Amino acid sequence: MKTVNINLGDRSYAIKISSGLLGKGEELLPWIRGNQVCIVTNEVVAPLYLKIVKKALSGKDISEIILADGEQTKSLQTIEKIFDQMLAIPLNRSVTVIALGGGVIGDMAGFAAACYQRGVPFIQIPTTLLAQVDSSVGGKTAVNHARGKNMIGAFYQPQRVIADPSTLATLDMRQFSSGLAEVIKYGIINDVEFFQWLEKNINAVMQQNAQALEYVIEQSCSNKAKIVEQDERESGIRALLNLGHTFGHAIETATGYSKWLHGEAIALGLVMAAYMSWTQGWISEQDVQRVIALLSKAGLSVEPVDDVSADELKSLMRLDKKVQAGKVRLVLLKSIGEAFITSDYDESALDATLKHYATG
Amino acid sequence: MKTVNINLGDRSYAIKISSGLLGKGEELLPWIRGNQVCIVTNEVVAPLYLKIVKKALSGKDISEIILADGEQTKSLQTIEKIFDQMLAIPLNRSVTVIALGGGVIGDMAGFAAACYQRGVPFIQIPTTLLAQVDSSVGGKTAVNHARGKNMIGAFYQPQRVIADPSTLATLDMRQFSSGLAEVIKYGIINDVEFFQWLEKNINAVMQQNAQALEYVIEQSCSNKAKIVEQDERESGIRALLNLGHTFGHAIETATGYSKWLHGEAIALGLVMAAYMSWTQGWISEQDVQRVIALLSKAGLSVEPVDDVSADELKSLMRLDKKVQAGKVRLVLLKSIGEAFITSDYDESALDATLKHYATG
Repeated sequence: MKTVNINLGDRSYAIKISSGLLGKGEELLPWIRGNQVCIVTNEVVAPLYLKIVKKALSGKDISEIILADGEQTKSLQTIEKIFDQMLAIPLNRSVTVIALGGGVIGDMAGFAAACYQRGVPFIQIPTTLLAQVDSSVGGKTAVNHARGKNMIGAFYQPQRVIADPSTLATLDMRQFSSGLAEVIKYGIINDVEFFQWLEKNINAVMQQNAQALEYVIEQSCSNKAKIVEQDERESGIRALLNLGHTFGHAIETATGYSKWLHGEAIALGLVMAAYMSWTQGWISEQDVQRVIALLSKAGLSVEPVDDVSADELKSLMRLDKKVQAGKVRLVLLKSIGEAFITSDYDESALDATLKHYATG
Repeated sequence: MKTVNINLGDRSYAIKISSGLLGKGEELLPWIRGNQVCIVTNEVVAPLYLKIVKKALSGKDISEIILADGEQTKSLQTIEKIFDQMLAIPLNRSVTVIALGGGVIGDMAGFAAACYQRGVPFIQIPTTLLAQVDSSVGGKTAVNHARGKNMIGAFYQPQRVIADPSTLATLDMRQFSSGLAEVIKYGIINDVEFFQWLEKNINAVMQQNAQALEYVIEQSCSNKAKIVEQDERESGIRALLNLGHTFGHAIETATGYSKWLHGEAIALGLVMAAYMSWTQGWISEQDVQRVIALLSKAGLSVEPVDDVSADELKSLMRLDKKVQAGKVRLVLLKSIGEAFITSDYDESALDATLKHYATG
């Protein structure tokens, strides 16, 4: 079993990574203080894993909240329904909320836990690659608003995270590839060795070799942890983790969160960040090609989109949380393995990038 | 000018107390980092004080959100409307939210600030006595749910609090007395000297003598601060501050938050806590009479209610956040100036108290 410790003072916690962990009560029960447990999951994950998690929790007073699937459910309305159910049971202040599912479930269950009676303990059991390598580290929870993604939320750390790579076998390849976009992102940001490892081992990863997956999850979580530990509330370098996201969120918002999976939009966002860094003369054309090649091998599309316009993306980017003093701050590249945050770029390079990749 | 410092590590802040502070930009502007300011207030407070606060903030990009008045507005639906307005403007992540109004406005604006883009800076300008002596200390924010008061919320500390006692002149006496219930509560919990001071000076306080008011606000805030600093998230002694509240919240919920002001319900709750402590033999009948006498002189009713039944109150108390392992934890008295938290009381003493004070 691999362990990644997230050191955040009195909000520290551990991520445990191993195949078959899902059914092991001894990895869950010591982190549940009260008797009440509330499992929040969705109608896709529940038939697969709810039973085994409930068995691991036997002896506890377990209730379950089963939501519809999909990013479209990630709204304040759904959070309100969760509160209605929690208060109808009623769950008290010592309940532990368990998020069983992907990033959407983690974001919503975490936000509900953050606000229920002003905060109750929370455990994450991420069942998608994206959730295991990204949303399980750093305590970002949120819901979307019609005017933007993740606009309403909280920083709220879990007590513990249980990442079981064997759950990825039931994930369709599109979801799996979407998770790999974030994995590749960590290499590009500040870990060129991990990027090189991925270039060499992408086939083993795509075949879901158990050891390769555990390594990928561990490296991703510890890369993210190093950044989050220095800047929990994103007042500085945590913004590095948004590499590809300002572009990607705009694509997701423009297409109504339905056509693109999050990681698919991020993949194209990574390409756009690399391309823009090249047009600025900061990285070589070969580096752009390496980014494109690795994303392609991970099953991700790196082609321009023709149903969104450059102007549309630009106006959506201006509404992003990363805007300061009117100029969009971007995460761009000095090299593969060295990203940086800047507002000091040529507007024309941004425009050229948007025009190249959004031809609608 | 009096200052009470709330020491909570990197979440520390100061409460400034002085007549006429409202119009002083120098006490506000240094705590506003960005250019955008969003004042959240209500239709009663806006005509009185919005103009003067806006003038104090001149040079900033000011937007305002004006809500309806009353505890009934303290809902997730109103919070959603606040988000809609904030995103429509649009306000970015460096906006400072200013709560201008009483406890309801502070609770809602604070909760909105806690969740908007995962948290933006927040300043409180409480304009009621209740808000100045209670909700401005300790960072509790929340909205109500049909099934209970303050069930959804966050612990979220402001950057600064500006308490201007001259705003109390526009408060009707019922609201003013309601605030005094919380003031008297601090004396009963752990400050017998303050309780004695109030017994001697209640007339000057009722006449809103400026010096007396500043002293009352300062003593209340520093009493509360001492407790909150030891237990920010209410895992232990902060529950002392709930003296009278488990009874009081049940009365408020039973009557739909419309008939009783919060402090009026707390006043009766304080009497019930004193009475129950006497029936247990922990305090003298004379102490109960002192509590009753001071609350009465502060213009608060201490009479039993005839439209709520003892059974109704008991079942509502069981839903309270303070329930642990099935038994309602109560804050009771060893003496005036020494409250304690306990589940170790005779159920019959609780029943007798409820029957004595709820005869419906």
